[in-house]
Amino acid sequence: MPTVADTVNRYAQLLGSGSADEITALYAPDASVEDPVGSGVRHGHAQIRELYSHVEKQTRTVELLSVHINGAEAAFLARLTVITGDARTRIDGIDVMTFDAQARITSMRAFWAVPEG
Amino acid sequence: MPTVADTVNRYAQLLGSGSADEITALYAPDASVEDPVGSGVRHGHAQIRELYSHVEKQTRTVELLSVHINGAEAAFLARLTVITGDARTRIDGIDVMTFDAQARITSMRAFWAVPEG
Repeated sequence: MPTVADTVNRYAQLLGSGSADEITALYAPDASVEDPVGSGVRHGHAQIRELYSHVEKQTRTVELLSVHINGAEAAFLARLTVITGDARTRIDGIDVMTFDAQARITSMRAFWAVPEG
Repeated sequence: MPTVADTVNRYAQLLGSGSADEITALYAPDASVEDPVGSGVRHGHAQIRELYSHVEKQTRTVELLSVHINGAEAAFLARLTVITGDARTRIDGIDVMTFDAQARITSMRAFWAVPEG
């Protein structure tokens, strides 16, 4: 059975190169996602998959910069770099997650801002 | 009136060199603090001051490494360095905070682990 640390690492890996289906499968069926914080809460796999369907179309990389796990909760700083032709857009954000007994994500809240410019 | 960003910066500054009273004054009277996450929740100024009474005795520095503010909530990565003689103990952690209309902290949850060894 995966640990919370396994799920965080797998999430970062898939956020960088996986499909919306693969990322969504890390979530419990009734999970909630608020990404970014303040934008409204998505509930359940269908709404969560819709979010990541935008991500999967992008050429991007994800680095985990600082991971902190306390029991069944985690907070981590990640760097998303979106590659468009010769341009690189870097977005740093902090994700806060809770997990169930199978280390599936039960909630995710992402603190980040759309880059200016 | 201070903004959320002002309060986060002031919190980091005081965590590095302020008194327990000064840090506690950044919190709303009925605020809650869970530090670290999983250790139980403190409520109100008296219990919060007790937490920071341990911090104020230490010689330490605090650096804000990555700050993300979304509306009335914030998450930030901070580095606490505790100085004991010639020894330096570095603790990185992610704090998640909510704020009231006066940018006072209404809740704080800190993700970090006691260093091993």
